[in-house]
Amino acid sequence: MAPIRNAKVIYKEIPQGYPEPGKTTVYDASGTIDLDTVQLAPNSVLIKVLVLSIDPYIRGRMRDPKIPSYAPAYPLNEPINTDGIGKIVKSTHPDLKPGDIVRSKLKHEEYTIKTAEELANPFAGVEVIKPHPKVPLSLYVGVAGMPGKTAHNAWRTFAKAKKGETAFVTSGGGPVGSMVIQLAKQDGLKVIASAGSDEKVAFMKECGADVVFNYKTTSTKEVLDKEGPINVYWDNVGGETLDLALGAAANFARFIECGMISGYNSKEGVVFKNMVNIVAKRLTLNGFIQWEIEAPWKEDFEKTVIPRLADGTFKYKEDVSHGLENSGQAILDVQKGVNKGKKIVLVAEE
Amino acid sequence: MAPIRNAKVIYKEIPQGYPEPGKTTVYDASGTIDLDTVQLAPNSVLIKVLVLSIDPYIRGRMRDPKIPSYAPAYPLNEPINTDGIGKIVKSTHPDLKPGDIVRSKLKHEEYTIKTAEELANPFAGVEVIKPHPKVPLSLYVGVAGMPGKTAHNAWRTFAKAKKGETAFVTSGGGPVGSMVIQLAKQDGLKVIASAGSDEKVAFMKECGADVVFNYKTTSTKEVLDKEGPINVYWDNVGGETLDLALGAAANFARFIECGMISGYNSKEGVVFKNMVNIVAKRLTLNGFIQWEIEAPWKEDFEKTVIPRLADGTFKYKEDVSHGLENSGQAILDVQKGVNKGKKIVLVAEE
Repeated sequence: MAPIRNAKVIYKEIPQGYPEPGKTTVYDASGTIDLDTVQLAPNSVLIKVLVLSIDPYIRGRMRDPKIPSYAPAYPLNEPINTDGIGKIVKSTHPDLKPGDIVRSKLKHEEYTIKTAEELANPFAGVEVIKPHPKVPLSLYVGVAGMPGKTAHNAWRTFAKAKKGETAFVTSGGGPVGSMVIQLAKQDGLKVIASAGSDEKVAFMKECGADVVFNYKTTSTKEVLDKEGPINVYWDNVGGETLDLALGAAANFARFIECGMISGYNSKEGVVFKNMVNIVAKRLTLNGFIQWEIEAPWKEDFEKTVIPRLADGTFKYKEDVSHGLENSGQAILDVQKGVNKGKKIVLVAEE
Repeated sequence: MAPIRNAKVIYKEIPQGYPEPGKTTVYDASGTIDLDTVQLAPNSVLIKVLVLSIDPYIRGRMRDPKIPSYAPAYPLNEPINTDGIGKIVKSTHPDLKPGDIVRSKLKHEEYTIKTAEELANPFAGVEVIKPHPKVPLSLYVGVAGMPGKTAHNAWRTFAKAKKGETAFVTSGGGPVGSMVIQLAKQDGLKVIASAGSDEKVAFMKECGADVVFNYKTTSTKEVLDKEGPINVYWDNVGGETLDLALGAAANFARFIECGMISGYNSKEGVVFKNMVNIVAKRLTLNGFIQWEIEAPWKEDFEKTVIPRLADGTFKYKEDVSHGLENSGQAILDVQKGVNKGKKIVLVAEE
């Protein structure tokens, strides 16, 4: 077989503001690969990239490598990498065979090699998945993957939900929050949910939330005063909203601390007026990282979440860009928040 | 037998600043009681008051009754009441007999009646205790009572302490904090402890704390930077110290939220800079009220704490005023913080 195209998206320079397609990242279609003759070192695999996940944290990796952070800075002049789904087309690794569908950090190129060293690293290695025939592959980086597991595993671990209680879910229009809404409704709770656009608000309603609002145009405090007190708080935002949730907490409320967007960049701090409620109302606050709490819920996730995605019980929203050449624009869209759902780039069909 | 004196301490007026003996409360020795002829209604008891506990919260009850708070305002022109220990001298209640030692909210008078209605109320009723022969009775409102149980029950419930870890205890010189220090040392932790006077600092050292400091003269941040990170934080103060503890937290640290003195009166709120660590370091914060978590630890407390108080393993510090006439001054001393240990008024010997 003749060589075929192997396009890449190269990370060219550290952006000052928004990452610009063609400047921060450059699509380069000049590369080729010959799938018949390509040579693999021992214990390596060649992967055909199918789906790439585009997430807000990518911007954080586009930084001066001297600045430490929880995820490493991208090296310049190499393809960027993000979560993705691919299919193994060649393998010299004893546990991985051609045809296996894998989830991994994948370079933004159409065909990519994982070296023996990468495969031995839990953060760069691959996870073989057995996709449900009725669940689109792309969901495995969305509600059937990390965001869905984040919602499911933390809800099961920390919510201690009782029928008739009230939950408040922030960022309820995203892949994590929308799953939390649906899990809470399944457990028989009244759900208050907030998001930052009317489109997301409409989607939260579709997911079954009882009280939905756009926090940019409606006072969170007024909603909580009227619809609270709250027994479970799903925190994706921190800051002033967390303080309002503390103020609206019922006795023994559980606060699931998934993220604090508003706190990440604030060196001046945030004024809290309701911290005393942690004592007065005997609250529990739990921070977590998904993969650290995953083990006891793996089977439960496969048995209860995947089938409900397959039969349409659980709703989700994707915003799909077709073709690797759109990766840079997809990254920018997510940074600007103009995406209409979980953003993915569909690189190729199986 | 002839009538004998039954002195009282009457609550006369709502104080503006500090409660003044002779003005806020007045000692009145004019009352008498005839123990032979006194008539009790059915299901009531007459108690000889032995020990009264003097605590900071008393000031909060000396307020306009229109202002709601967790403990009811004292009614004017009646004896104030606080936690105390007494001995039943007469009883018409089937479950209580003369000679029983009881712990209860007790009026500040030498002999006091508990009515059937009061005895039926869990907050005003009496608890019969069987004091250990080598444990002074007064400790049953201190380290052998509520403060000791607060330390023990919450430490056992929430600390998840592992040998070699580091704990930071605030208000470490008080009856709760000093017990926490000793429980943490028993579990093999390194203990950092802070208090607001050099005398308390010396006592914390006596209790076994490894690193002790006076937060008024030493920077909490500098101590935590040097001696942390911390795995368990015992919070008696809230506010800025809580924020510093969040900043110094190790991954998976447990925050035991016992009290937030600094937050009770602050309407402006407190600036928090380190809240994001709840997520980033996967922290757990737990608020609690002692009696709600007591049930599983009752036996453990009797078996592990009381014997260690009896044999001198566990240290404690009392500041004793002799005679009911000193109740007003004792209350003022505690408000000014000049007491040298858990403040009690010894009203009478058994």
